[in-house]
Amino acid sequence: MRDKALASSRGWAIVESLTTEVGPRLAGTEADIRAVAWAQELLQSSNFDRVWTEPVSIPVWRRHHEQARVVSPYPQPLRITALGYSGSTDGEMTAEVIGFPSMKAFKQADADTVAGKIVFINRKMERHKQGAGYPPVSRMRYTVVPAAKEKGAKAALIRSVGTDSHRFPHTGASVRSDNPFPTAALSAPDADQLQRMLDRGVPVRLALDIRVSERAEGITHNVIAQLNGRENPEEIVLIGAHLDSWDLGTGALDDGAGVAITTAAAELISQLEQRPRRSIRLVLFGNEEQGLWGAKAYAKQHADELARHVIASESDFGAGLVWRFDSANPDLMSTAMTALAALNIEQGKKPSSGGPDIGPLQQQGVPVFRLQQDGSDYFDYHHTADDTLDKIDPEKLQQNIAAWSVVTWLAAELPSVKRTANE
Amino acid sequence: MRDKALASSRGWAIVESLTTEVGPRLAGTEADIRAVAWAQELLQSSNFDRVWTEPVSIPVWRRHHEQARVVSPYPQPLRITALGYSGSTDGEMTAEVIGFPSMKAFKQADADTVAGKIVFINRKMERHKQGAGYPPVSRMRYTVVPAAKEKGAKAALIRSVGTDSHRFPHTGASVRSDNPFPTAALSAPDADQLQRMLDRGVPVRLALDIRVSERAEGITHNVIAQLNGRENPEEIVLIGAHLDSWDLGTGALDDGAGVAITTAAAELISQLEQRPRRSIRLVLFGNEEQGLWGAKAYAKQHADELARHVIASESDFGAGLVWRFDSANPDLMSTAMTALAALNIEQGKKPSSGGPDIGPLQQQGVPVFRLQQDGSDYFDYHHTADDTLDKIDPEKLQQNIAAWSVVTWLAAELPSVKRTANE
Ligand SMILES: [Zn+2]
Ligand SMILES: [Zn+2]
Ligand SMILES: [Zn+2]
Ligand SMILES: [Zn+2]
Repeated sequence: MRDKALASSRGWAIVESLTTEVGPRLAGTEADIRAVAWAQELLQSSNFDRVWTEPVSIPVWRRHHEQARVVSPYPQPLRITALGYSGSTDGEMTAEVIGFPSMKAFKQADADTVAGKIVFINRKMERHKQGAGYPPVSRMRYTVVPAAKEKGAKAALIRSVGTDSHRFPHTGASVRSDNPFPTAALSAPDADQLQRMLDRGVPVRLALDIRVSERAEGITHNVIAQLNGRENPEEIVLIGAHLDSWDLGTGALDDGAGVAITTAAAELISQLEQRPRRSIRLVLFGNEEQGLWGAKAYAKQHADELARHVIASESDFGAGLVWRFDSANPDLMSTAMTALAALNIEQGKKPSSGGPDIGPLQQQGVPVFRLQQDGSDYFDYHHTADDTLDKIDPEKLQQNIAAWSVVTWLAAELPSVKRTANE
Repeated sequence: MRDKALASSRGWAIVESLTTEVGPRLAGTEADIRAVAWAQELLQSSNFDRVWTEPVSIPVWRRHHEQARVVSPYPQPLRITALGYSGSTDGEMTAEVIGFPSMKAFKQADADTVAGKIVFINRKMERHKQGAGYPPVSRMRYTVVPAAKEKGAKAALIRSVGTDSHRFPHTGASVRSDNPFPTAALSAPDADQLQRMLDRGVPVRLALDIRVSERAEGITHNVIAQLNGRENPEEIVLIGAHLDSWDLGTGALDDGAGVAITTAAAELISQLEQRPRRSIRLVLFGNEEQGLWGAKAYAKQHADELARHVIASESDFGAGLVWRFDSANPDLMSTAMTALAALNIEQGKKPSSGGPDIGPLQQQGVPVFRLQQDGSDYFDYHHTADDTLDKIDPEKLQQNIAAWSVVTWLAAELPSVKRTANE
């Protein structure tokens, strides 16, 4: 099955179809409706035993217009993108900029130096194979808002949370609040440009024009397909990805790759002569990008079944090669490694996480596994307009699918993979 | 002088200042006026013997709005940029797309299959060290217009003339005509996306919204600085770059690097104890991007002096390392190579060109030299929003300045560098 995956172009066909025929699919929008329909048709046309959807009620936040320019002393446009749940400026708003190298420095500033100004936090993200540089900086998308409000700032600009130096601002969710606050990210080159202006010691005035909207009662769906276990169908191995994407690119890496990897892996298992011991449930989660809405809804909807979820994992880290397998189950680990070693995958240990959408399950005690991918360049494209199909290497996608089909089948087959009392 | 250049950050300071304090500087716009003022101040504050400007009358073409989206079958936005001298669509215009792999294929198409449609030419540019892949494809920006008009097309879209696969459309001048035609470039990923849709054999309808304007009577300036020769001041060695840039990026590579390289080189020569034998004239040309307007004006304005221009060259190819020196003058070649070899520069031969703005001079018989740069990645950024300061490597800039200061000084000093009767 592993080798069949390495020779199959099914995974590429899936992500090619999703990114081309649907493209950008922001949660709750018309494109998201097409994404759900696309996923249903994909899974129904395959040989799963059951395919269904579950509704997820969500707010629908959308960007309509986002523009920034330096008014003085050096008039020129800057490239920005609003963060998720940002507020609108009231038409074009002009104010002086005050810059800080970090949130820590900003928190120490007294309010009167900040009041009425645009706050700019210029902190760079570090590049790491596993994306370790992301959490400390992505937190800033949230923490900057209350701090800026408190000090009377008129808007907040952050250096994009990303590791590239291209003119692509990176979007991403910020804090959702009753009085939304205009918050946007500058691309790295634009953050550098603004910093060079500030470093000249002259007051810099910017004009920001951000128009967004938010509709409280929106809806999206989790799309679910299942292979029924031949002996213990009530026990569930859950694998998944998220179907929504940000609106700037076509969501190829985030998370079209994950949709392709987990779907193609489940399909390979479905083509074996017999079903594995336990059920395998493939969940394409709705609205991960703006707060794990689909994942939280699934955990709530299936609260009574979570005890029967024996293990879970999500592919939501692009299409880099898998380099390590993490699991706390020694039998699953040793058995899987016999097949994974040939894929240059190292033996890992107990994983801290099974992926963003698996968090709500893990919190309820569901064990997780993790197929760690090399994400060295993931955050070059993450949440930008540049997240497009050409960024995916078909061979790396095949290696992911091979690994996922092996581990998922073993998780569903090995007697040792079950929920023990003390888990 | 060569080694002084290798240790100096003057070149970086010049391009940092131009791209930060002026930024994008489209010919004839307010930013262009600031660019000219910036250049005058830069050159006046240095130790040139004379600094002056010469007016250049130009049409002023500007982009105001450029947007494209797929209407059907797979609704989604596409990233485009209007080409220079493109016409406006009359508000948002919708039409079916017909695609061709090359201009050759398009020219063979019967008009009735093209009439009323948007023509899409999807030809890829090859990557070459010296940019040899550029001319055959960049020609398309011009030739597509008459062909599209002739076959009754409503607009023309080309795959960006560039070697990157990023969501950056590349702009560039197209043909200027009395009835301007809507012509734009798709980024490479968007061209691939559109091609994938067309390859599915379903009619694809696009909506194009391009709003541009053109003012016939505009003005820009060539900014010129001169070091007067100590013996034959009437003989002129001309070096230069172009001061204007496209409006999408800050014109760092194209041509802020060239401005920095040639200015810093001329400054190093001005700091020697004595002036060289001949005069050195540094020309920062206006409006190269939309048709060598400044260069043509210079050639006309100085028609009577061209016979005394002993040699000329322009730096307009980014900031890659110089790897070869081309000159038809054996004495200049052999003498220069004694200093250039240490900079890993090979000996070349008779150059075919001295740079875009030197063309009008060359046509009048002015000899040229060429310091060939490695342009392997130049067309990744060329005419895109991503042409920003961070793309320049300070050390490569220093190597360029070292080479230019040596060759320019020798051209102005060596007795052998003069206009012979048969040139
Ligand atoms: Zn994701
Ligand atoms: Zn994401
Ligand atoms: Zn140029
Ligand atoms: Zn150019």
